[in-house]
This record gives sequence, C-alpha cells and structure tokens, in this order.
Amino acid sequence: MNQVILKKKISQRVANGHPWIFANEVNEAPEGVEPGAIVDVYTHDKKFIGKGYFNSRSQILVRLLTRKKDDVVNEEFFYNRLLEAWKYRQQLGYEENCRLIFGEADNLPQMIIDKFNDYFVIQTLALGIDVWKPAIVAALEKIFRPKGIYERNDVPVRELEGLPQQKGFLSAPFDTKITIQENGLKFYVDIENGQKTGYFLDQQDNRRAIQHIVKGADVLGAFTYTGTFEIHAAHYGARSVLGLDISQNAVDQANRNAALNGVDNICKFECMNAFDVLKAWAREGKQYDVVMLDPPSFTKTRDNIQKAITGYKEINLRGMKLVKPGGFLVTSSCTNLVQPDLFLQIIQLAAKDARRKIRQVTFQTQSADHPIVWEWENTHYLKFLIVQVL
Amino acid sequence: MNQVILKKKISQRVANGHPWIFANEVNEAPEGVEPGAIVDVYTHDKKFIGKGYFNSRSQILVRLLTRKKDDVVNEEFFYNRLLEAWKYRQQLGYEENCRLIFGEADNLPQMIIDKFNDYFVIQTLALGIDVWKPAIVAALEKIFRPKGIYERNDVPVRELEGLPQQKGFLSAPFDTKITIQENGLKFYVDIENGQKTGYFLDQQDNRRAIQHIVKGADVLGAFTYTGTFEIHAAHYGARSVLGLDISQNAVDQANRNAALNGVDNICKFECMNAFDVLKAWAREGKQYDVVMLDPPSFTKTRDNIQKAITGYKEINLRGMKLVKPGGFLVTSSCTNLVQPDLFLQIIQLAAKDARRKIRQVTFQTQSADHPIVWEWENTHYLKFLIVQVL
Repeated sequence: MNQVILKKKISQRVANGHPWIFANEVNEAPEGVEPGAIVDVYTHDKKFIGKGYFNSRSQILVRLLTRKKDDVVNEEFFYNRLLEAWKYRQQLGYEENCRLIFGEADNLPQMIIDKFNDYFVIQTLALGIDVWKPAIVAALEKIFRPKGIYERNDVPVRELEGLPQQKGFLSAPFDTKITIQENGLKFYVDIENGQKTGYFLDQQDNRRAIQHIVKGADVLGAFTYTGTFEIHAAHYGARSVLGLDISQNAVDQANRNAALNGVDNICKFECMNAFDVLKAWAREGKQYDVVMLDPPSFTKTRDNIQKAITGYKEINLRGMKLVKPGGFLVTSSCTNLVQPDLFLQIIQLAAKDARRKIRQVTFQTQSADHPIVWEWENTHYLKFLIVQVL
Repeated sequence: MNQVILKKKISQRVANGHPWIFANEVNEAPEGVEPGAIVDVYTHDKKFIGKGYFNSRSQILVRLLTRKKDDVVNEEFFYNRLLEAWKYRQQLGYEENCRLIFGEADNLPQMIIDKFNDYFVIQTLALGIDVWKPAIVAALEKIFRPKGIYERNDVPVRELEGLPQQKGFLSAPFDTKITIQENGLKFYVDIENGQKTGYFLDQQDNRRAIQHIVKGADVLGAFTYTGTFEIHAAHYGARSVLGLDISQNAVDQANRNAALNGVDNICKFECMNAFDVLKAWAREGKQYDVVMLDPPSFTKTRDNIQKAITGYKEINLRGMKLVKPGGFLVTSSCTNLVQPDLFLQIIQLAAKDARRKIRQVTFQTQSADHPIVWEWENTHYLKFLIVQVL
C-alpha cells in the first residue's frame, strides 16, 4: 500500500478529526501513484492515521475515508457506508426525502446524495470519490431498487480536481421532472435543471417552523426560488402570500407548485429584484405581518466575506422595515463563511439601523439529515432565524 | 414625577435596551421616594430614557417598565402588557400551557406567570412589581376567567429586595394538584410544592424533539424529576425506559405520571444518585440506545462557573460512555452562566475524554414562549442538544 507521511506540525489537526490533507502538509508522498488511488496516511512518527483517496493534481492531496486500519476500501465499504447513512436518516424519521450522504459528515468526503422518494441525485466533487461512482450506484440499486439515478456534477469545483463538469443518467433514463411530498404538500423537482441537486432539502424541517406565525397573516417572501416557504405559508393558513424572485423561470415553477397544491388563489409570485423592491416598498410604507428572506450566500470565498455581511445586513434591514409592529421576520443564511454568532450580530445591527426592537423566537440550523461535525465547520452552514419585530 | 438621572458612562448601555439600573450608575436620585414607586429615568444630559419601579433597598435601584414617555403605569398598563403577551403566545401556537410572562423579555422585569390550562402561577421577584400583584390578578381574571391563581414567591432572591418568601392563593382556594396535557400526554402538576412554579414548561417543545430517535430504543434518563422526558420516550415508542432521580418524591411523582399515561409497563423510575450510578454502570459496560440528561444548573453564581463546567463535563462524559455506538445523547443545560458556545465546548471535551466521536443532530434553546432578548443574556439560558455518539 502507498504511504503518505504527514509533517509534524499538522498531524494533530488531522488526528483530531479533520479529513483533508493539503499537499504542503505532507513530508513524504509516494511517486507515480495514480490519481484516485487509496493511500495509507501516517503521522511523522509513523502512527497510522487513516486511509483516503489521493490526487496529486489537487491542492488537497488526500481526503480520508476511514480511520480504521482494517477497513478495505472496496465496493462493500461504500455499500456499508450508504446503509449506515440510511439507517441514521431513518432513525431521525426521514422516509421519502432526505440528504442520504452529506459528504464529510458521513465520512464520504466530497460526495452528496439526495434521495427524492424513488429517485437519487449524486454529486462527486473530487476525483478520488468520482472513481467509485459505479460502486455507489450498485449500492443504491441494492439498498433502494430506485426508479432512477442522476448525476448533477455540473459544478465548477470539480475542475480543481481535473474533473469535467457533467450531468446525466447513472441509471436507465427517466423523466427528470418528478414530484415529491414534504410536510403534506407536493413540489415539482427538476432533477436535470433545478439549482444544485434540484431541491433544497436542508430547509425541510425549518419550513414547518413557520406553521403558527403565518396563520391569518399577510406574508411577503423574497428570494423564493420555487416557492416552497410561500406555499407552506398558504397551507398553514396565511391570508395572502406574495413571493418575489429575480428569475422568471423560478417564478414560473413557483406558480406551478402553488397550483399543484391548490393555493394559487392565495400565493402570488412576481419576477422582481428583492433588493430594489424591498427598499422602495419600505419607503412607500407597505407593511406585512410576516416577511421571509432566504437569500443566496452573496460570496463563495473568505476574501469576500465583507460583501456577504453587507448583503445580509442590507436585505434584513429592508425586510424588517416592512414588518408590522409585533409581526415576524423569518430569515436564513446558507453560507458557512458566516457562522451563527456573526449572523446574529448582523441581524442585531440591521435591527438597530431599522430602529426596531427584536425578540428571538426560533434559531435552528439545517435539517438533521445534514448532521454537523464540530471539527469541520463547513458542515455547519445554514442558519434559520425567526424574530418578532416590535 | 420623581426623576432619576443616570451617570454619563452607563447611559448608553441602558439606552441600548438593558432594563436594570444599579444604584452606583445613578448621578441623582430623589430622596424620600417610597420603595416601589414609579420614577422617570433620564440620561446625564436630560434625555428621557424610560419609566420604571424604584427600590432604594435593592442594589438595583430602578427596573424599567417602559421606554415611552406617554405610558402611564397603572392597572390598564398591566392589563395591556398581559394581553399583548398572550397574543404573542397564541401566535406561536400555545394554547393550554405556556409561560405567559417571561420577565424582562416581556417588559415586565422580575415577573413570571405560568399558565397551566385554567390555572396561573405567579412569581414577583422584586418589590416594585410585587406591589402590582392586585393589578396582575385583576388582569388575569378579566382576560382568562381562571379557575385559580397561586403565588410561588418562596424564592430567596426576594430577600435582596426586602421581600418575604411566601406562597399561597391569590384567588379563592382550589386543589393545587392539577393535571395538564402536553404533546398528547397528561402530567400532574403540583402547584403548591413542585419545583419553581410546579412544572418546567421551558422544555415543552424540546420534549417533542426525541420523537424519532427513541423508537424501539432502550432509554436511560438521569435527573428525571417528574419523568416528563421519559414518559414522552415511552409514548414515542421506546422499548424500555429507566429514569433516575435523587429524590424519592420525584420518583414517586414520575411513577404516578407514568401510570396516568398507561406507560408504567415501559417506564421504570429509581431513586439513585446519577453521578455515582452512571460511573459504575459505564465501568460495568452497560449500554443504552439513548441516554438523556437534564441536570440542575450546578451553580447560581458566576464565581462558581468552573464548578458548573466540571459538573456538566463529568455527567456528559459518563452519559456518553453508556451510549451504544450509533446511539444518541440528549443533553440539556439550564443556566445562563454557561452560554451556548461554552456548552458545546464542554460537550466536545466530554466526547474527547470518553474517546467517542459525535455528530450534532439538533441544538435548540428553551421553548418560544420564553423569548430571547439578545441585549439581555439572562433570557438565553436553556441549551438542548442531541448528538449521535459514534
């Protein structure tokens, strides 16, 4: 077996649970190893650390798959990992839909699998996991007998690994416009062309959290994408719901979802730039009982973190101004670059600038099918907050 | 109206929302003011800050009731505050039971009111709010037509205000052993002799969070008090539940609650010291699918915070050792002296010492009828965490 020996300085970090080993953290690496091969990793003083997949073309030389010396990384290994991951989701009550594999948190670095009832969408974002796609597909077939498996590897990060961007069927072809059920509602999922894997499962538990506050309320939603929060609001008894998204395609899908659930008389969607509109409407004195914001991450890199902070602050400030006294702001942030404490500070600053007092009602993370590993801050990325705005 | 003028240095803190004014933060205070009287508070440069109740016998000279100059603090004022608080709880879906008034977070400093269906339990922990008890009782009568109102002022902190410890009826006498319903279960509440107000409503939402993980599980609960988490576990499908508490009286009540819900064949309770027993059982190699810990705060003062940290770490370490690989630890901390980040650090240290890897499933605070005001860290006191223990 090929061996990678770590530098003295970095070993402790990796020993504590971090699964990535950067090229500059390695003392000795074997030569001529095929990218994607499995290697054994040792500390500088030859203590076994784990096994992982190797890619000399990537800045991240090794990503660990196991800490057990006896583990053999083969088809059965992946089958067992998937079975274990599925058991965990079942223990948490997930049945129809869930994130089955959440990468590093499931000890399968850079692999994502979303389960949408009988359909599975896969992302393999590093070369060393990409080569195991046939084993993953075989395991899915064996455990679930799925109606379809699709690969959504149209993701730029793959290029850092020397991998092409691509998407397509990993099973016999099927109609990629499917329907799922969530919290008693139905939603279209566009597996081929939807954002990411086609649907944001990470908010599935949070969507239930608006259940009581929207009853009889006039609700405004911004960055609605396919309208899932808004349609939940109508379902839970909102009097009126207006959803805004900058993409006409998203608005069309949201309208179709509203019709699918028979709430198109309550939910309206419009193609608008939320930043501009919220500002204008605040000036006009428009007011809603509940304002819901689910904006994009604003930045993908730590260098631009100030841009994200500014973006979140601005949009929340504008949102708060549109809330009637005693009403509620429902607000999310989906980037791990803004950690929970910072997010709460941003909301506090927004409240100060909006001259509104707020009280925290609920503060949650992503759904439990995306478990959080504290040693690995990337796994803690979603913040979901409800505040009362006085 | 009597006027209190703040020192220059402290005004900003109070201006930002903090409702307490200490005696040493005041430049000028009126003389001969009756303890409990309402005073106007101004900054050093004579800007109006708010109105509050005064007590020269307390270290906390004034606690603010309102920031509005036009507010008149009278019977109607308290009636409106209660109505507003009740509206908020109703908006969040609370009906039968809730914390109706959560002190400072409801702008009624040092006042607690718990609603147990038609019964109300009151605490007035400062003199300036104690004098308004007749107004509060009148407001409760008007809004709820309650079957009974009881005062649980047997709390040492009252003595700092020159108030006696006392408990008793604030309405016509009634049977103080009542029954409430929570999440489809029934629990006895001993209004006269139970801990605090007789029942811990702050965990009512968290008790639902164990719903899925206890299915078919062997469950161990420690610090069970009257067995509410354990009876929920049985109700949600646990195979067996063992609850431990150091008080025989608590164990007796827990057994009665189990019988009331027809789960006394599944739930057993024993009078034991959890610290000792958990240690011994870990040594013996006992294992459970789910271990639930809801320990006391271990300290009431910041000086003793290390004691709390040590206590939480020890008990969680012992608890984790009793969890089967892949099982769950459900753990709480109820003191605001240990803030969320510190609590998570303690759990991480416990996992390290127990040589177990953990994944965060759920992290919540107290129920939303105890809203959190960020400027006022005492309102953020309960941490409720579920981790998978690998």
